[in-house]
Amino acid sequence: MTTTTPTVPYTYAKSRAAFERALQVVPSGVYGHQGPAEGCAVPVSAYPLFSQRAEGTRFWDLDGNEYLDYMCGYGPNVLGYGDPDVQAAAAAQQRLEDVVTIPSSIMVDFAELLVDTVASADWAFFAKNGGDVTTLAVMTARAATRRKKIVFFEGYYHGVAPWTQKLDYPGVLEEDVAHNLVAPWDDLPALERLLAEHRGEVAGLIAQPYLHGNFADNRLPSPGFWQEVRRLCDAHGVVLIVDDVRAGFRLDLAGSDHHFGFKADLICFCKALANGYNVSALCGSDALKDVVSSLTYTGSYWLSAVPFAAGIATLTKLRALDAPALFDRLGTELTTGLVAAAADHGLHLVTSGAPALFYLRLADDDSLMLHQEWVAECVQRGVYLTSHHNHFINAALTSADVARTIEVAHEAFGIVRARHPELGG
Amino acid sequence: MTTTTPTVPYTYAKSRAAFERALQVVPSGVYGHQGPAEGCAVPVSAYPLFSQRAEGTRFWDLDGNEYLDYMCGYGPNVLGYGDPDVQAAAAAQQRLEDVVTIPSSIMVDFAELLVDTVASADWAFFAKNGGDVTTLAVMTARAATRRKKIVFFEGYYHGVAPWTQKLDYPGVLEEDVAHNLVAPWDDLPALERLLAEHRGEVAGLIAQPYLHGNFADNRLPSPGFWQEVRRLCDAHGVVLIVDDVRAGFRLDLAGSDHHFGFKADLICFCKALANGYNVSALCGSDALKDVVSSLTYTGSYWLSAVPFAAGIATLTKLRALDAPALFDRLGTELTTGLVAAAADHGLHLVTSGAPALFYLRLADDDSLMLHQEWVAECVQRGVYLTSHHNHFINAALTSADVARTIEVAHEAFGIVRARHPELGG
Repeated sequence: MTTTTPTVPYTYAKSRAAFERALQVVPSGVYGHQGPAEGCAVPVSAYPLFSQRAEGTRFWDLDGNEYLDYMCGYGPNVLGYGDPDVQAAAAAQQRLEDVVTIPSSIMVDFAELLVDTVASADWAFFAKNGGDVTTLAVMTARAATRRKKIVFFEGYYHGVAPWTQKLDYPGVLEEDVAHNLVAPWDDLPALERLLAEHRGEVAGLIAQPYLHGNFADNRLPSPGFWQEVRRLCDAHGVVLIVDDVRAGFRLDLAGSDHHFGFKADLICFCKALANGYNVSALCGSDALKDVVSSLTYTGSYWLSAVPFAAGIATLTKLRALDAPALFDRLGTELTTGLVAAAADHGLHLVTSGAPALFYLRLADDDSLMLHQEWVAECVQRGVYLTSHHNHFINAALTSADVARTIEVAHEAFGIVRARHPELGG
Repeated sequence: MTTTTPTVPYTYAKSRAAFERALQVVPSGVYGHQGPAEGCAVPVSAYPLFSQRAEGTRFWDLDGNEYLDYMCGYGPNVLGYGDPDVQAAAAAQQRLEDVVTIPSSIMVDFAELLVDTVASADWAFFAKNGGDVTTLAVMTARAATRRKKIVFFEGYYHGVAPWTQKLDYPGVLEEDVAHNLVAPWDDLPALERLLAEHRGEVAGLIAQPYLHGNFADNRLPSPGFWQEVRRLCDAHGVVLIVDDVRAGFRLDLAGSDHHFGFKADLICFCKALANGYNVSALCGSDALKDVVSSLTYTGSYWLSAVPFAAGIATLTKLRALDAPALFDRLGTELTTGLVAAAADHGLHLVTSGAPALFYLRLADDDSLMLHQEWVAECVQRGVYLTSHHNHFINAALTSADVARTIEVAHEAFGIVRARHPELGG
C-alpha cells in the first residue's frame, strides 16, 4: 500500500472539476448517500466528491488525498475494501459464470449458509437492494394476514420505495402511505394502544433493531422492549419484520434480533452480506415460506452467481474472525478515545448506538455547527466521518488506525476550540 | 472451449438433486424468470434447473449438458457470456475500487457516454433493477405534473413493485394500483378517449416500445402509432415514459424510441446495459432533470464503479459492432430457418416481435401443447428456448450456431410430427 504524507487541510480541485462535469449529465451530480445534497456530509466544502482507489479501511480521492474511512461505503465494506479472500472467491466464480438463463447452484450453498448462520432463518430469498426485501417483507405480511396496515417506529428508514417515504415528499401519493401507522420508539404503552386501536387491521410491524437515524442520537432498546414487542405481535397476529439492512452482521452474525434476544418472523439483510458485491436477502420462518412463494417477485440480476460466491466468502470469514466482537472492541476503543480527546479540549462528545455503528455529536451544540466544524477538520486531515449519520467499523481497521484517528481528532478539536473563544472554560 | 458430444435427449439428475436442496432453503426453490414456477419454461421436466458455466452464446448445466442459449440470462447477455473486453474492463476497475463511501468518477464517464449514445438522454440516473428506474420514472411524472394517474398498455410488464402488479396478486393493495389506467395496445382512438375522460389527471404514460408479453404473439406498433402517442401526450401534458429494459440496445443503440421515430421524455434501461454487470439507468430530457433531483431516491450499490466500467466497455463494443444490425441479421436468419424447418414437417411456426427478440408459436395449437412439445425436444438436444417468452440474440452467436440450431429444430419438429399422426398431411 502506498503511504503518502498528505498536505493538510486537504483540497479538492479534481473532485470539484469532476462534480461540475457530473452536474451536466446526472441529476444532482452525485445523489443519495454519496452526494452532497443529502445533508449527512456537511459542510460540503470540507468533503471530497469522488474516489479513485480503495483498499482495506482506506480510500484515496481524485486529488490523491488518503482517508481512514469510517463510512465503509455506508455499510457494504465489512471486511475491508478488496478483501483478498472475497476477491478470490468472486473472481473464481466470475470465470465460471455470473448471470445466466438458469442460476448457479451456488445460490443453494449461500442459502444453506444463511440458514445455518441466522437464528430466525429457515429460508433465504435473494434480491439486490435492501428496499427489494423490505418491500417483499411488507407484501408477505399483507398476503399472510390479508390485512393492510404496517406499524413503523418514528425515525424509520426502510429504503426509498414510495411506501417507505412521507406524504410531503415529491412523487409520493397519499395512497402510497395510506396504511402506515407510526409508533414512538421504545414506548410499549404507546405501541400497545396503537395495536389495540387497530385490532385486526395490522399486517406487520417493521423496525430496525435499534433506532439509528440521522441527525439524532441513536437509541438502543430498553431491556425487555423487544421481548414485549414480540409478545404483542403474537397477541395481535402481526408479522414482526426486522430491517437488519444497516446493522446486520455487525452486531451478531445470527441476526440483530438474536443479539437482542428475540426472534423475528422476517429479517432483511443487504449491506454487509457480501463485502461490496451486490446482494440482499429476506430470511424468515417456515410458517411464511409458502406465502413468499405465492408472490410475484423477481429481478434480472437477483440470482447472479458472483455475489453469492462473495457472500459465502464474506460470511465464512466474518464467522472465523468472530467479527461482531472485533467490531465492538474496535468501536469502543475508538469512541472512548474520541470522547477523551474532546474532553482534553473542554468539549463533550456524545457517542450513541452500538460501537460497531457509532453515532457522534458534540453536546451543547443545538445548531450542530460546532460538530460540523470538528468533522470538517477531521475529514480534511484524512479521517472520513460524516456529520449526521452513524458510522461503520470494518474488520481491516487496526488499533494503529484507531490511534491515528484519535490523534487527528485531537488536533481537530484543538482547532475548533481555538476558533471559538466564546466557549470559555 | 470444450465441445462435448452430448447424449440426447438430455437428463437432469444433478439439477433435480440440487433443486431438492433448494426447495428446503429457498421459497419455490428457484423463483422468478429463472424458476420452474413462472410458466415460461414448460414442460418443467424438459428443462435443466442449474447452470455451472457459461461462455459466449452457450452455457453448461449441472449435469454437463451444453446449450446454445437463446434466453441470454433473460436479456443481460448481449455481447456473449464472459465477453473478454467487458471482463477486462470490469477486472481493472475491480482492482481499483467498486462500492466506496464516495463514487468513482467513472460514473460521470458512463453518464456522458449514455448522453452521447441515447437520443432522448440529456442525463442519466443509475440504479440496480429495471424496476428501480420504472418506479423513479413514475414518481418523476407524478412530481412534475402533480397528477396521480398513469396509463399502461394491456399486457404491460414494468417490474415487480406493487404499483406494477394486479389487484388480485397476493400482497398487493387496491391503493397500490388505484391510479393505474389501462389502454389497449396500438389503438389510438381508445387512448384518445381514455386521456379525454381523465383530462388533467394523467401524470404519465409508460410503455415498452412494442408489446413483448408472454403467452402471446409480440406486437409491433402500427406505422405512425408512436408519433400520435407523442402528440397526445404533449396535448395532455402527460410525461411519456419508454420502458426499454427488455428491448434497449437490441433494436437501436440510440434507444427504442429513436428506432420507432419518436422521442420519449424518460427512458428506462437495464438488462443489456453492461453485459451482465448489474446496473440500470433512467435517462431523460433536461426539462425533468430538476424534478428527478428533488426526489428521495438512492441505494447502497447504485454508484458502484465496476458495473459502470463494464457498461462503458459494453456500449463501446456494441457501437463498434453496430450490434442492432447484427442482431437483426442473425435473428432473421434464425427465424427464417426455423419457419422453413417447421414447414418441411407440415407445421406452421409463427414468429413475431423484432428478430433480435423473436417470439415463437406453432400455429393451429390453441392449447400450446404442441409448441411446448417441440420446445422440449429442442432444449433436450441443446437448444435452449422457452415456450412462452420472447428470446434474445447476443453478439457472440455465429451463423454456424444458427445453422446448428435449425438442424436441431428440424429434428425436433420431426419427432413431434411423428408423435402426432392426428395432424394429418
